Amino acid sequence: MSVIVVGSMAFDDIETPFGKSNKIVGGAGTYIAYAAANFIKPVQQVSVVGYDFPAEELEEMRSRGVDTAAVEIVSNKKSFFWAGRYHLDMNTRDTLVTELNVLADFKPVIPDSYQGAEFLMLGNLAPSIQLSVIHQLKNRPKLIVLDTMNFWMDVALPELEEVISQIDVLLVNDSEARQLTAEYSLAKAAKKILSMGPKYLVIKKGEHGALLFDSNKVFFAPALPLEEVFDPTGAGDTFAGGFIGYLAQTGDISFDNMKTAVIAGSALASFCVEKFGTTRLKEITKDDISHRIQQFRELTHYQS
Amino acid sequence: MSVIVVGSMAFDDIETPFGKSNKIVGGAGTYIAYAAANFIKPVQQVSVVGYDFPAEELEEMRSRGVDTAAVEIVSNKKSFFWAGRYHLDMNTRDTLVTELNVLADFKPVIPDSYQGAEFLMLGNLAPSIQLSVIHQLKNRPKLIVLDTMNFWMDVALPELEEVISQIDVLLVNDSEARQLTAEYSLAKAAKKILSMGPKYLVIKKGEHGALLFDSNKVFFAPALPLEEVFDPTGAGDTFAGGFIGYLAQTGDISFDNMKTAVIAGSALASFCVEKFGTTRLKEITKDDISHRIQQFRELTHYQS
Repeated sequence: MSVIVVGSMAFDDIETPFGKSNKIVGGAGTYIAYAAANFIKPVQQVSVVGYDFPAEELEEMRSRGVDTAAVEIVSNKKSFFWAGRYHLDMNTRDTLVTELNVLADFKPVIPDSYQGAEFLMLGNLAPSIQLSVIHQLKNRPKLIVLDTMNFWMDVALPELEEVISQIDVLLVNDSEARQLTAEYSLAKAAKKILSMGPKYLVIKKGEHGALLFDSNKVFFAPALPLEEVFDPTGAGDTFAGGFIGYLAQTGDISFDNMKTAVIAGSALASFCVEKFGTTRLKEITKDDISHRIQQFRELTHYQS
Repeated sequence: MSVIVVGSMAFDDIETPFGKSNKIVGGAGTYIAYAAANFIKPVQQVSVVGYDFPAEELEEMRSRGVDTAAVEIVSNKKSFFWAGRYHLDMNTRDTLVTELNVLADFKPVIPDSYQGAEFLMLGNLAPSIQLSVIHQLKNRPKLIVLDTMNFWMDVALPELEEVISQIDVLLVNDSEARQLTAEYSLAKAAKKILSMGPKYLVIKKGEHGALLFDSNKVFFAPALPLEEVFDPTGAGDTFAGGFIGYLAQTGDISFDNMKTAVIAGSALASFCVEKFGTTRLKEITKDDISHRIQQFRELTHYQS
């Protein structure tokens, strides 16, 4: 199975109650790729970076099975840059700086070598960019997963609704599900979203776990009660990468297998938040991941 | 096995975004008793009411196996009364009226017929009242479960710490766990609380489920994603009643059995919120409860 990942690769400057990262590599596409590559190779990456993006980072990604053929390097512009500061609760944050740079006119081009991919992960980006990727694929992938955020609901709702109508799995957080549907009840919000096109919906609730819905079933994945959440940046993207990576590895897109994929995504995300940026994702081994997935299993297991 | 339940029996006037209840029967002890009686009889109730409390309600409780021998009826005072209004999110509420009435000088007396009970459920009340009940018991129960709230942390912390040091299981919600320990991380808060005396801790997270901790294990119970939460009043008390009722029925206070007790409590609470007050708790059958517990099981079940 092969998987195409579309998402930003960027620099972040993160401040949390525990410290300051300075300028480090981030971006939704980066987190997705590092997470997915634990399960499936190659990860066919589609992104854009500026002249300032470290060659060593691209090399590191390639060494982990990420195909960077469609990572465009713009020689006269800088990479996307975001700076943010987390509040004490680590659930809310202020954006301090957003410099779009290369992302301002990103027009992804899917190379012939990527055609035929069975899985497509559209990371959080402008819905028009996400749509353009779908339109470039000659064969519709077996599964299209879309991540988005409240910003696009505010500024590009018609385009967002268009892309949502064309995908299989939508990933949003609880407040985004509520905003998109004007329903407070997540059960009602899920029904409305599933009537917009997707067959499956994942509602991410951060420290409260995640819910997976199809038209008549629901699955609740816990979050590990962590002693320290050091840096939440990228946790949602990492979840997406673990989710699609697991599905691509197993090739099984049934609701039952999607439950385990949600656990895999949650496990990867629980590592991500332990250190700044992608640091922890680069350290973990297959054994670490298996052990963490087992912890998730024990967390909700009980006797009848 | 027998269980003593100590808690208020009262009137509530509840306003939610969905309607207004007018003055109806409520009180922590009432909810606990109705929930526990699904699992264990008799429930040996300890409470106080005024001349205005409906005799039919006491009769209804007795018909369900609640022993009201220690429900004091004060002939010249009114029952405790609380009026509140829920916000749109149904998670926060404003107290509009609190009239202590009979609760102002409630001094529970444990009758001889209740001595020897193996389970004690101390519903949310002043810590000094909770302590006085423990002191009246000639034999320490096998398991003492305590519910409390942020109010007592604000006005009676030393007494609350004293009673917490003498019990086995503490039930609090997430914000109360944080307030009690000054720790944001629930994993850290749990460690601190378990060092204060209790062997087990349940952190209730409302629509996000509940966590059960002992000194080295953790269990995460989901909440059903309900389409409608009609009235959250009494959900925490109902949880407590289902929890201790299940433990008393089975007589097993191991961590493993406590997991299932958390599910039983969550299942009962999920009924409670479907209608105003205790209405729904009085309608449900054993089959309804079994079916709901099965739904909880399916909610987190997945293949390895």
